[in-house]
Amino acid sequence: MTTTPTSTVPEALLSGKRSSSTGLVLTLSCTNQKGIVHAVSGALLGVDAYITSSQQFDSPDTGSFFMRVEFTTDAALTDVQDALAPIRDRFTMDLNLHEAKTKTRTLVMCSKDGRTLNDLLFQQRAGTLPIDIPVIVSNHLELQPMAYFYGIPFVHVPVTRREDGSDNKAEAEARLLDLVAEHDIELVVLARYMQVLSDDLCRTLGGKAINIHHSFLPSFKGARPYHQAHERGVKLIGATAHYVTPDLDEGPIIAQQVQPVTHAQSARDFVNMGREVEGSTLCRAVRWHAEHRVLLDGNRTVVFD
Amino acid sequence: MTTTPTSTVPEALLSGKRSSSTGLVLTLSCTNQKGIVHAVSGALLGVDAYITSSQQFDSPDTGSFFMRVEFTTDAALTDVQDALAPIRDRFTMDLNLHEAKTKTRTLVMCSKDGRTLNDLLFQQRAGTLPIDIPVIVSNHLELQPMAYFYGIPFVHVPVTRREDGSDNKAEAEARLLDLVAEHDIELVVLARYMQVLSDDLCRTLGGKAINIHHSFLPSFKGARPYHQAHERGVKLIGATAHYVTPDLDEGPIIAQQVQPVTHAQSARDFVNMGREVEGSTLCRAVRWHAEHRVLLDGNRTVVFD
Amino acid sequence: MTTTPTSTVPEALLSGKRSSSTGLVLTLSCTNQKGIVHAVSGALLGVDAYITSSQQFDSPDTGSFFMRVEFTTDAALTDVQDALAPIRDRFTMDLNLHEAKTKTRTLVMCSKDGRTLNDLLFQQRAGTLPIDIPVIVSNHLELQPMAYFYGIPFVHVPVTRREDGSDNKAEAEARLLDLVAEHDIELVVLARYMQVLSDDLCRTLGGKAINIHHSFLPSFKGARPYHQAHERGVKLIGATAHYVTPDLDEGPIIAQQVQPVTHAQSARDFVNMGREVEGSTLCRAVRWHAEHRVLLDGNRTVVFD
Amino acid sequence: MTTTPTSTVPEALLSGKRSSSTGLVLTLSCTNQKGIVHAVSGALLGVDAYITSSQQFDSPDTGSFFMRVEFTTDAALTDVQDALAPIRDRFTMDLNLHEAKTKTRTLVMCSKDGRTLNDLLFQQRAGTLPIDIPVIVSNHLELQPMAYFYGIPFVHVPVTRREDGSDNKAEAEARLLDLVAEHDIELVVLARYMQVLSDDLCRTLGGKAINIHHSFLPSFKGARPYHQAHERGVKLIGATAHYVTPDLDEGPIIAQQVQPVTHAQSARDFVNMGREVEGSTLCRAVRWHAEHRVLLDGNRTVVFD
Repeated sequence: MTTTPTSTVPEALLSGKRSSSTGLVLTLSCTNQKGIVHAVSGALLGVDAYITSSQQFDSPDTGSFFMRVEFTTDAALTDVQDALAPIRDRFTMDLNLHEAKTKTRTLVMCSKDGRTLNDLLFQQRAGTLPIDIPVIVSNHLELQPMAYFYGIPFVHVPVTRREDGSDNKAEAEARLLDLVAEHDIELVVLARYMQVLSDDLCRTLGGKAINIHHSFLPSFKGARPYHQAHERGVKLIGATAHYVTPDLDEGPIIAQQVQPVTHAQSARDFVNMGREVEGSTLCRAVRWHAEHRVLLDGNRTVVFD
Repeated sequence: MTTTPTSTVPEALLSGKRSSSTGLVLTLSCTNQKGIVHAVSGALLGVDAYITSSQQFDSPDTGSFFMRVEFTTDAALTDVQDALAPIRDRFTMDLNLHEAKTKTRTLVMCSKDGRTLNDLLFQQRAGTLPIDIPVIVSNHLELQPMAYFYGIPFVHVPVTRREDGSDNKAEAEARLLDLVAEHDIELVVLARYMQVLSDDLCRTLGGKAINIHHSFLPSFKGARPYHQAHERGVKLIGATAHYVTPDLDEGPIIAQQVQPVTHAQSARDFVNMGREVEGSTLCRAVRWHAEHRVLLDGNRTVVFD
Repeated sequence: MTTTPTSTVPEALLSGKRSSSTGLVLTLSCTNQKGIVHAVSGALLGVDAYITSSQQFDSPDTGSFFMRVEFTTDAALTDVQDALAPIRDRFTMDLNLHEAKTKTRTLVMCSKDGRTLNDLLFQQRAGTLPIDIPVIVSNHLELQPMAYFYGIPFVHVPVTRREDGSDNKAEAEARLLDLVAEHDIELVVLARYMQVLSDDLCRTLGGKAINIHHSFLPSFKGARPYHQAHERGVKLIGATAHYVTPDLDEGPIIAQQVQPVTHAQSARDFVNMGREVEGSTLCRAVRWHAEHRVLLDGNRTVVFD
Repeated sequence: MTTTPTSTVPEALLSGKRSSSTGLVLTLSCTNQKGIVHAVSGALLGVDAYITSSQQFDSPDTGSFFMRVEFTTDAALTDVQDALAPIRDRFTMDLNLHEAKTKTRTLVMCSKDGRTLNDLLFQQRAGTLPIDIPVIVSNHLELQPMAYFYGIPFVHVPVTRREDGSDNKAEAEARLLDLVAEHDIELVVLARYMQVLSDDLCRTLGGKAINIHHSFLPSFKGARPYHQAHERGVKLIGATAHYVTPDLDEGPIIAQQVQPVTHAQSARDFVNMGREVEGSTLCRAVRWHAEHRVLLDGNRTVVFD
């Protein structure tokens, strides 16, 4: 878990000069002002960087500036960092530098429904999701065989209610944070993990945890949302992938997708189709995050896809 | 406006035998029970009908049965009606018979925004919407030139607030109902008509009035919804066409569509894209209604498209 | 493999009376003529059937009539068959009767790419695809572990070229047909099986084998189609699931889907996104087929979804 | 029609200093090389420009670099041009500078089908398409009333075949080019103009003329494509907007969209639905072009949307 918000350099990159050119991804945000692009491009030119992709966005609503640059260079990582440091300080930037080939260390949480987990694990294995998954955490045991098939350690962290009415949620969340620390986790993905996280945990994982939930037009609150949507006769069902915040299902939206449905489909059909949309949408959001394409603009996201 | 809910036969069809075969559309609904299809198909066989399309749906949630049959026959309309009457009575059906080539007499209401009106008028003229539009009603004058271009009478029915705080809404709605009666209107389309109809009017027009409104995931209540959606950073914007009911924007949904949006688009862009989706969705709903493809199943619709 | 094209009754259903009501699916096609629906509904009424869903289509282009009926009955299967037999003969129907809960016995063929196989296997296991998969056949070994994970026998049938330039394709196809017979296979699914089937095999499997292939606007012939599409700068990539015929990739289309792409995506990205669309489209087509929703209308399909 | 490919400055901007800040759009392309962004951003900083949006793309296939920058400045246009000129020369750029508020002067060509023309004219009038349409050209008279409604001059340029088998196509195209010159036309839009342009005219209008045509998976050549698609049983119909080139319907693709269809829809329905997709897709392409978001990368487009 990255704890330095203003500048992150992968440890592996600090060991000095490398013989061949390295692909890097630079993301930054700051208050919009003149001269940012010139300063950044100048620093990159100074380390003989070859820019392969660059996107920027000036948010007229928040007055913030966002930039993502992919480039290659033969310079040592420390030299790139040194070149950027004065610019970061001058413009008071939140600036991050990532090695393009380094995969995001991801902890996946799940419960009993395996559809989104299966999508994540297959795509990770197939190489279309640039993440490593050192550990899977679940409050149930149903999906352990799937974890075994993919050779990923599966940790059972049950969340239970005791006789006196209290529960072990605090202990379970502490266990999760231990696993996050132990495995150098950079991203937590809630793949239909059916427990509400505490506000404290949401804040600790701010911008580092992605959840998926069903979405409809209009939206429905409470239990059995697909059944509510079916009863209401909606013609589209969908899913929203978003960063986790203490406001349940209200965090910054990363990706949304929908599928058409008809009167002839049952609530059970809605659930099945919804699972497909959820899996596809979650994978998309995780990929964008892992490729450092998602930046936060207040309660919104800027997605440089 | 059709006032007989249980059996409607177009007046023009009651004038006796015709020399050539006529295309008819039969729609019916009743409590599901055995023998309906056999009885209906037997009656149609009795008038030597040739079925070209037939769809039915058994709603497991409400226990209702829905059927739509397109057929041609050389029999007189009265004979077809006579053949169906005993079945209608036996199964306590809501049964309607429409001549396929008869266009639905439609009154369109609008305010200032012409996008959806333009879509409706062009498609009506091009022959892709099987409706006649004998009159357009608006509380503003901005769209009168468009009505003139299409040669459709335009009636200005302003809704104003008097000095004493009261308004003329009751008179305006009475005027509307006069126009509905005068022009034998069968369908009222609210093409971004920016006034809330009274509960009484909504009930009077029940199942005979279609509205279009913006839709998002999640949904937003109150003013300037596109701006709220923009502030929330949604990635999809959409529209819902539904029958008007006293529950504002909560009537049975006929059609829904969405378009993807990104962080780079302004709230103004959202509005413009939203208008396109709204126009397309409204036209689709009106076409389905005018082709007698939409049946009500409680607060849901059955759409035989 | 069903070898009686005009009337198929599941063997298991022929064992006489059953104590509780059974869900059945009836599909039929014949030359369009008056009285079909009345005759069929009469026969079903005669066995005290309760129709839960019925769809029909009259193809104006081919003059054919298609019907699919879902119903439940307490009658013995033989009684239902006896009731329908005279109608089948009278209208010269291609008529099939399926038990709704019976899963379609499906053989899946694959090569090295596991995305579509993974989608099929997961959905089958999750219960959202009503098929049984008694055996997987591949000309390569890469996907054997995935078959093992799902506990499905994996048969390696390599297709090789000998030193003298000849190949073992005929033997490989004979081996496939042995497996089809041995496992009572009703459907063969080519989940990115990268071998062209012989014309004879295509004919033998006519209407019983589904293939998936990439689709673009416009389409591209030959090798590396995603790269051709990328070079051409297409903005949509898609997939078509179709029945296998001797005309390569020209069989009756069952399902098609697309995804938007941009200039910023590489040919490799196109392939990855294409795999997702292919898997989703193939699963949809297999589900429709297994639910007996797909009927052939010449070189087209009628899909009662 | 801009005839200087390497640097275009709107005439209106050359008149010297302006009192308030102006929004400008810079687009450029050249062989990719180090230092471009730094040089461009430096030049813009030199004229005290405030960048509000910037996008760039490095095409790995062609080795070309593309950039689009929106910015505001108080500097005179000539000063901005002077600041950019050395960079243009140094990197051998194709560089264009546009005033953001200046609308693209557009000539629309049509025949008898008004759907796409109606979409263009309404959106232009509503302010959602940043174009001016000084003249409409048609080889038929059917759409003249629509042009009148929007107050746009309509020029009838019939294309006819003489008794001796020759035609007046050369004269008609000469007339078109006269109109292009007379009205300072920057963009020609073929809104279902049903004549094939000569190779010479296509070359003259290279990158300045946009056509719309139907698109299917797979594609169909020749007459009545919607009927061919219907006969083939496609499940998606779509449209492609592209730049006109001598290769008929093979120019660089700007935008593509599709709509699902079913077996129950007739070829006539396909045509009607196709018209809607065509209109929507053409408007989208024209808007992107008019906002200077489309750059040519060989036979592909880079679309900075």
